[in-house]
Amino acid sequence: MQGQTIFFKNKPKIISAAAVAGPKECAGVLGEYVDIALSEDMFGEKTFERAERKMLLHAARRCMEKAELAPEKIDVFISGDLLNQIISASFTAREIGIPFLGIYSACSTMSEGYLLGAALADAGFVRYALAATGSHFASAERQYRFPLEQGTTRPPQSQWTVTGAGAAVISCKGGGPCITSATVGKVIDFGVSDVNNMGAAMAPAAADTILAHLRDTGREPSYYDLIVTGDLGALGSRIVKDLVWEKGVDISDNHVDCGEIVYKVIEDEFQGGSGAGCSAAVMNSYIYDKLTGGGKIKKVLFAATGALLSTVSSGQGETIPCVSHAVAIESEGE
Amino acid sequence: MQGQTIFFKNKPKIISAAAVAGPKECAGVLGEYVDIALSEDMFGEKTFERAERKMLLHAARRCMEKAELAPEKIDVFISGDLLNQIISASFTAREIGIPFLGIYSACSTMSEGYLLGAALADAGFVRYALAATGSHFASAERQYRFPLEQGTTRPPQSQWTVTGAGAAVISCKGGGPCITSATVGKVIDFGVSDVNNMGAAMAPAAADTILAHLRDTGREPSYYDLIVTGDLGALGSRIVKDLVWEKGVDISDNHVDCGEIVYKVIEDEFQGGSGAGCSAAVMNSYIYDKLTGGGKIKKVLFAATGALLSTVSSGQGETIPCVSHAVAIESEGE
Repeated sequence: MQGQTIFFKNKPKIISAAAVAGPKECAGVLGEYVDIALSEDMFGEKTFERAERKMLLHAARRCMEKAELAPEKIDVFISGDLLNQIISASFTAREIGIPFLGIYSACSTMSEGYLLGAALADAGFVRYALAATGSHFASAERQYRFPLEQGTTRPPQSQWTVTGAGAAVISCKGGGPCITSATVGKVIDFGVSDVNNMGAAMAPAAADTILAHLRDTGREPSYYDLIVTGDLGALGSRIVKDLVWEKGVDISDNHVDCGEIVYKVIEDEFQGGSGAGCSAAVMNSYIYDKLTGGGKIKKVLFAATGALLSTVSSGQGETIPCVSHAVAIESEGE
Repeated sequence: MQGQTIFFKNKPKIISAAAVAGPKECAGVLGEYVDIALSEDMFGEKTFERAERKMLLHAARRCMEKAELAPEKIDVFISGDLLNQIISASFTAREIGIPFLGIYSACSTMSEGYLLGAALADAGFVRYALAATGSHFASAERQYRFPLEQGTTRPPQSQWTVTGAGAAVISCKGGGPCITSATVGKVIDFGVSDVNNMGAAMAPAAADTILAHLRDTGREPSYYDLIVTGDLGALGSRIVKDLVWEKGVDISDNHVDCGEIVYKVIEDEFQGGSGAGCSAAVMNSYIYDKLTGGGKIKKVLFAATGALLSTVSSGQGETIPCVSHAVAIESEGE
């Protein structure tokens, strides 16, 4: 480890990626790229929670199919989600029967999954790791804020939890974009306590990790074709650019936020998308397509952010600690 | 990976361990061995949740002190807990400022932490990893069952969540018992839906992982001086011995359950202790002392179990999926 960054020597690659997304999400940029576009956000299930885990299961299965690997060939399933006790991940692990490592990193779960999958593959501990996560607008609202039935008005700084899931198979065998390094984030808390303003709470964590990554690797932001944050939204994206600029680093030319681009911002999602499924779906469809398409996008720094609050911690007056893990993904040198 | 088991080649060791426990816990076997014995279970805090995270913080800090390492020397903090969104771990990570990987594996969090810490150290990605977890009786009751103020009667198959925390520093540098291999558990669900009967729900996961470990390593149970489960309790311990015996494996001579031994079972804890803090406190004090004391206990298989339910999944009629991760810890060959 150099500072906070692990460098991988044996070229762990994202050999396949898959994503599922709901109808609202597919009306935007995801529509063309996801593997499974839902026509209704219950996915034929009776509860939001069952719909959420079904998306995760389908993303995982589709991803294994695309890699032409049966579940028995996958050594470890690394997953977590936003629901209490990560039940979406646990119940998915029960269905697919792959040895399971549960993780929790809120909306930065996908980058922690990439990081651990790459680490275990690079070290030769596993041949194939499957990393996945997802979220559902309605289950997240019920758990973190208010039941939808209550019809609570949403404030303008709020974001809309993405109904979607993404999965990736990581291995040193096979082709695909390489995970060349990963930066483990510190928990950063700037004292924001507004549970409707996740972008402002999470932006300092993203800035801290992006700066750490650039310092540890000795790189300029221009090394990357894209610096992709997870779900800061429109306001949070402005803040992260300001925060790193104050440290003499300019990411304004190549910064993109999954939350900011996921919706056509025309109605009540305000600042854009959020949730573990936001960056999971965008990275494992749209961005993966760009990385493997032979076009201009060859080097991506993916720094998803997670807000590590609970309803209990907020209710007890605590501020919102946040974390961001960054993963460098490069399609050159395959 | 051989089957579900990772073998470590570079001798990652538990170079220091520390534990904190509440007064009820310290009345039992832990009293002599823990680093910090609380005189009252609020630890001077106003809420149960703050008391829980304070125990975790103190266990982590004491463990670093014992290893003579400042937090800046630790590369990664691997932690999780039972509370929604693992707030105890996240808030502790904020306090100590070490790059943080959040994990969730319910009461098997300590074994997942040992496993990941050993993997990252063995691969040379980190020099020092700090793994820790804990739990608190009152915060767990409030979240998973009923608020204590309600005075709900506890059924005889119930267990008592341990008020305690444990931490370990893992590194290939320095002395201490070696983590020689680790077996990643599959999620096992035998259809138990009684949220008061965790031992019966978790025993099949422990049996599955112990059998996988013995199969992958080609070992007999007698290879180990102790096979330590996490918190099956008295009933669950009987069940796990029966389940492996049905497969032709006899662990009755050397099986010990942290939940079964943690209390003097004389009052209302019924089947014994449970919770992430149960095995964390027992392993990082009592068992660590045995492993490093030069006595008969030199080889331990630690297979903690976690019940991956939430109040929502139970309320929606789901059964309880469980997982167990096993870690082989050997004090010979230091």
